[in-house]
Amino acid sequence: MKAFNFFNPTRILFGKDKAENLGAELKKDCIAKVLMIAGGGSIRQNGAYADFVKTMQEHKIDFVESWGVQANPTLEKARELIELAKRENVQAIVAIGGGSVIDTAKAVASGYYLEDIWAVYQRKAVIREALPLYTILTISATGSEMNGNTVLTNTETLQKWGIGSEKIYPRLSVIDPSYQRTLPAAQTVNGALDAIAHILEFYFMDPDACVTLGINDSLQCTIIEMTDRLLADPQDFSARASLAWAATLALNGLSGVGLAGGDWACHQIEHSFSALHPRIAHGAGLGVIFPAWIEFMAERQPAVFNRWAKNVWGASGISEAVMLFRDKIKAWGSPTNLRELGISESDIPLLVEKSMIAPRLGALSRFTASDVEALLMLAF
Amino acid sequence: MKAFNFFNPTRILFGKDKAENLGAELKKDCIAKVLMIAGGGSIRQNGAYADFVKTMQEHKIDFVESWGVQANPTLEKARELIELAKRENVQAIVAIGGGSVIDTAKAVASGYYLEDIWAVYQRKAVIREALPLYTILTISATGSEMNGNTVLTNTETLQKWGIGSEKIYPRLSVIDPSYQRTLPAAQTVNGALDAIAHILEFYFMDPDACVTLGINDSLQCTIIEMTDRLLADPQDFSARASLAWAATLALNGLSGVGLAGGDWACHQIEHSFSALHPRIAHGAGLGVIFPAWIEFMAERQPAVFNRWAKNVWGASGISEAVMLFRDKIKAWGSPTNLRELGISESDIPLLVEKSMIAPRLGALSRFTASDVEALLMLAF
Repeated sequence: MKAFNFFNPTRILFGKDKAENLGAELKKDCIAKVLMIAGGGSIRQNGAYADFVKTMQEHKIDFVESWGVQANPTLEKARELIELAKRENVQAIVAIGGGSVIDTAKAVASGYYLEDIWAVYQRKAVIREALPLYTILTISATGSEMNGNTVLTNTETLQKWGIGSEKIYPRLSVIDPSYQRTLPAAQTVNGALDAIAHILEFYFMDPDACVTLGINDSLQCTIIEMTDRLLADPQDFSARASLAWAATLALNGLSGVGLAGGDWACHQIEHSFSALHPRIAHGAGLGVIFPAWIEFMAERQPAVFNRWAKNVWGASGISEAVMLFRDKIKAWGSPTNLRELGISESDIPLLVEKSMIAPRLGALSRFTASDVEALLMLAF
Repeated sequence: MKAFNFFNPTRILFGKDKAENLGAELKKDCIAKVLMIAGGGSIRQNGAYADFVKTMQEHKIDFVESWGVQANPTLEKARELIELAKRENVQAIVAIGGGSVIDTAKAVASGYYLEDIWAVYQRKAVIREALPLYTILTISATGSEMNGNTVLTNTETLQKWGIGSEKIYPRLSVIDPSYQRTLPAAQTVNGALDAIAHILEFYFMDPDACVTLGINDSLQCTIIEMTDRLLADPQDFSARASLAWAATLALNGLSGVGLAGGDWACHQIEHSFSALHPRIAHGAGLGVIFPAWIEFMAERQPAVFNRWAKNVWGASGISEAVMLFRDKIKAWGSPTNLRELGISESDIPLLVEKSMIAPRLGALSRFTASDVEALLMLAF
């Protein structure tokens, strides 16, 4: 197993009604005024907003509300909220929502102390400080509730880029699976595919990381089983809870231990999809690109790809496992090729160009532009 | 899945030569003088002590050395070291060793701010503050390097009791598996059995905790496989590393998520063994008591015991799995009954009495004195 460092200081409160403890936690941390960041309004339906307001009032914590963060969140919105946080002199951020809201909140928390947050995404500046961040998660997918990563899209340059910093781990995250009982099936599936993709980004890096690979086999099987259960019965609280915790673990550091930081080519290529077509759900894009990537890569590390085929899909070979993976994605009602995502063959050159903008593409194997093109044709 | 809170702020530096970063980390934390706590001297052979001295000197950090912590560490020794820490005005503790050394160091770090540390073990006082604790692990077993637990024996009263507090999580732990390459086989096995026992204390609490149970299946299989590999080849660095990380995860909070705090009857009963016979290795004692406990308990929760039998041992039933578990322990050269531990039938009444001293015994089922007696006779 390769050497690694592990550090994850986020406190998790998991379970029904756990948000009611948020006010007391903020009080304990001597915080008197927060900026609440939210999306389009689903938190009014699922109960998270009401629970937030109640615990703030109960503990007499002042809050400013800001709504309207969208899927594939933008730099523009983050900049607007940084100005708001400064103007309002808040002491902390509370993000209520999914990965887009939390990623935006991380940019706000750190951008508060910087001249220009985008400079960090461009690797021209470093985060040295951030406002404390608290989250109430309402869709399990990105793992952002328990990691130090954030991805934003610069809509001017069509760059969807990510950063990581120890300073932007949420101090505390509430994961109450009951907020997710009203999620449309497609969003549950997108979340599951995103979580599986996070595990897959690490999985193939080193066959010798036995502990992590064993955990990653198990997490994938659990995510698949729980998603099946939820599509059969969206009110299955137990499946909802297990899917939520598995998705958090899929990108909280644990799934990458000893796996050299992961590959991330698929994520970077998928980011080019959503930078181009902001309506493409991240999970759906990954569900198209990953099976193709596995086909494309399997011969270079057959041992670990065969392990995956056997342990996750009970398959005797990689082709069979990829077929079962695609069948599952299809059964979940999600696209299995670029056409179903609404991408046409003529988009491919621009997707290749946008994918190659990243400083490097792939770790298991460095991707060239012609590799990306071949991969996209396979996914087409 | 049951509600839970999760928090684990320990930073892990894992891999060969990672101890060389300790001085820089202490410096970053503005620490100029530490108390080093160690055991009988094996750290002079395995290289950990030399690496510690080198990094302290390199970063000009002053240190006081204290040696002689023994297996089944005592309250007496902890009290002596608390006095030393106060007298020497140290700013942090560095524990170099296994669970006994680290557990003692936790008592010292917190006892530094208390009138009497034993009052915490007696539930008459609470830890509000502790000196920062850094560890260099030299035997993987207890998980103490990444949790907030400590167990000490009061040799006057023959009470071996444990406590837990967020304040005594190590701030940083170095896990360099190469320090363990010189461990005698029996110690590797004791460590493996201790780690398996930690997982088993949680495992049977709730069949609905799918994510955790999947991880726990995988951790057990990995520990068993790696121990087999190490007994065949003690220099197998890869197996050593995997066993080390699996043992850390076995008791860092992850293996207990959604499992209501675990059962812990076996640990409490085993503690009565070692309070009575301090030479009985904790892991060996657990290896005797756990198979018997599983036989004793299986009928009360057959579904989850059957899951364990199938997923960990590939067995079709619980009796077969217990047999395979005992066969494995025997193949590893460890005792499988009380007699082989050096306990005679006439000791049993005192063991029952000492086991029942704990405020409660067992969670899956509350054990009475006659339950303990029946269990011990089964293990005899």
